[in-house]
Amino acid sequence: MKTLEATSLRLTKQGELFILDQQMLPAEENWICVEGPEHMIQIIKDLKVRGAPLIGVAASLALGLWAKNNQPSLDEFVKISEQLRQSRPTAVNLMNALDRMNQCAQDSQMNPEAILQLAIDIFDEDVRLCLEMAEAGASLIEEGDNILTHCNTGGLATVGLGTALGVILRAWEQGKNIHVYVDETRPLLQGGRLTTWELARAGVPYTLICDNMAASLMAQNKVQKVFVGADRIARNGDFANKIGTYNLAVLCQHHDIPFYTVAPKTTWDPHCAQGDQIPVEQRNPQEVRGVNGSFGEVTWSPEQAAVYNPAFDITPQELLTGWVIDGRCIRQDQADGDLVPFLG
Amino acid sequence: MKTLEATSLRLTKQGELFILDQQMLPAEENWICVEGPEHMIQIIKDLKVRGAPLIGVAASLALGLWAKNNQPSLDEFVKISEQLRQSRPTAVNLMNALDRMNQCAQDSQMNPEAILQLAIDIFDEDVRLCLEMAEAGASLIEEGDNILTHCNTGGLATVGLGTALGVILRAWEQGKNIHVYVDETRPLLQGGRLTTWELARAGVPYTLICDNMAASLMAQNKVQKVFVGADRIARNGDFANKIGTYNLAVLCQHHDIPFYTVAPKTTWDPHCAQGDQIPVEQRNPQEVRGVNGSFGEVTWSPEQAAVYNPAFDITPQELLTGWVIDGRCIRQDQADGDLVPFLG
Repeated sequence: MKTLEATSLRLTKQGELFILDQQMLPAEENWICVEGPEHMIQIIKDLKVRGAPLIGVAASLALGLWAKNNQPSLDEFVKISEQLRQSRPTAVNLMNALDRMNQCAQDSQMNPEAILQLAIDIFDEDVRLCLEMAEAGASLIEEGDNILTHCNTGGLATVGLGTALGVILRAWEQGKNIHVYVDETRPLLQGGRLTTWELARAGVPYTLICDNMAASLMAQNKVQKVFVGADRIARNGDFANKIGTYNLAVLCQHHDIPFYTVAPKTTWDPHCAQGDQIPVEQRNPQEVRGVNGSFGEVTWSPEQAAVYNPAFDITPQELLTGWVIDGRCIRQDQADGDLVPFLG
Repeated sequence: MKTLEATSLRLTKQGELFILDQQMLPAEENWICVEGPEHMIQIIKDLKVRGAPLIGVAASLALGLWAKNNQPSLDEFVKISEQLRQSRPTAVNLMNALDRMNQCAQDSQMNPEAILQLAIDIFDEDVRLCLEMAEAGASLIEEGDNILTHCNTGGLATVGLGTALGVILRAWEQGKNIHVYVDETRPLLQGGRLTTWELARAGVPYTLICDNMAASLMAQNKVQKVFVGADRIARNGDFANKIGTYNLAVLCQHHDIPFYTVAPKTTWDPHCAQGDQIPVEQRNPQEVRGVNGSFGEVTWSPEQAAVYNPAFDITPQELLTGWVIDGRCIRQDQADGDLVPFLG
């Protein structure tokens, strides 16, 4: 079997799928051998695998390997696929990938080789789209820029270079002298744990901040551009992304700072007219009452504190400077509230 | 000796000053017996005592008791007073209180009774000013309001009812059916640890959020008003407050939500023309790399992660709806960039 190798996903010659447990990073690099689709569902729910593009690829591969090993009927395949689809409600890459897998299962009359090959194609496609996004987005970055980013959108969120962080890493590779401000991204600290880890590995200078410090930096003209990822982009250009993204968009408008989202076309939802139709996942209150990870577990609030814990927020299209989607940079004034002519 | 009793400060009949260690809350209620001004300096630096008005009162009492017990010369007194003044650079209540203590020491020719009496007067004044602020500010709150607040500004930040939180508590006492959203306030979690503790004790319904979730609530029209405290107010109305306050002010402007700061006149700095003249304390990077308190200590970022950790930010006066100072509500259009006619 073809082997696959990404920052946080591996497929061995023997057909074993391994996932790097992102809840354990950066303290431990612990690889989990995926036992099947139901195991993958739990891995996704526990955020051991995360990042909209990566979830789509990982779910497809788990499903494709299971089909190859178990030769299920179409009904059985669609049932398991539907369970995978329910594992996280906001990131649309998962739904888009599973739609393609289901279609292939039907078209090929449950040919396991064809189904697994599609999952591998989805992997390869993500690697290629990351390169296209990185190249297109890096053209927006100038020598000396201080760039702020949120959550983690690099090799840990995709099987390639990344989305927003891929753009930043590509600009650095091009020799541009840049500096990155990293939002820690409460409650699950993907910025503080994962983006810092990736930037340190790549040797890119960065400064970690708490999410509420970005405005203070902007007021001092210390941020030239903001790049973030996306979990779902609607037809009009509104998008869902990690909680705190909309806050940044408002701050960028106030301070006249360019604000871009970077995503592959697999994040585009042609069935969704606008942002208020995107379901937003509410997560466990305990995530806000403290922190929990390989670094330890502490609770600082009263034990029964009522909590609001949306995993995502919705940024309306009018706050964006532009969208970097695959190899394109689509400017606000080009889109004018309708991305369909570019992506439909 | 007159006894004094506040939520987090006590003076006994025997002249012993006790401070509730706020770093240990809410897990433990641990009272520290203050051994003298140098001990108080360390207590202030360690944030065991915090909150701009409370710092001013606590420092004055430590100084007054020391003067009474040790009968120092004016030179010795001024020297110790100067060391206390250096313990935290942003909150001006400390400087204002020590200026009054120094003046009294000089005017009374080091009369220890007079000096200690002034410290007690500063305590009593803070209690009275809290009541005035609470009454004036509560008039701005309407039945059914959802109010968002930041950091801790209650009985733990003053020796009375509080500033911004005092306003909220007073509205609740008046029988108004309100609900409070509490920013956790990274990095030191004064909202998540202390404001939740105070609201739970008072029985006020609240919901704890991460700082980056406020914008999402505002976009859904779930926040009617925002009240925050202040650490220093300049002549033009710009003010310093806990990091994250300026972010909220920008969000309020974007969402057309009334935004008020609540502070006693002891937070007013008549020597400071505008916000950019206020020194902002930079704190230990380790505070951002993880969390540390009575609840435990964890670090989630790379150990050597570069960090930006300002304790405060500056909110320009034009973003405010108004200032609640002592018994007054000063509206933006009344002040018009100059608070001197109201406070000078």
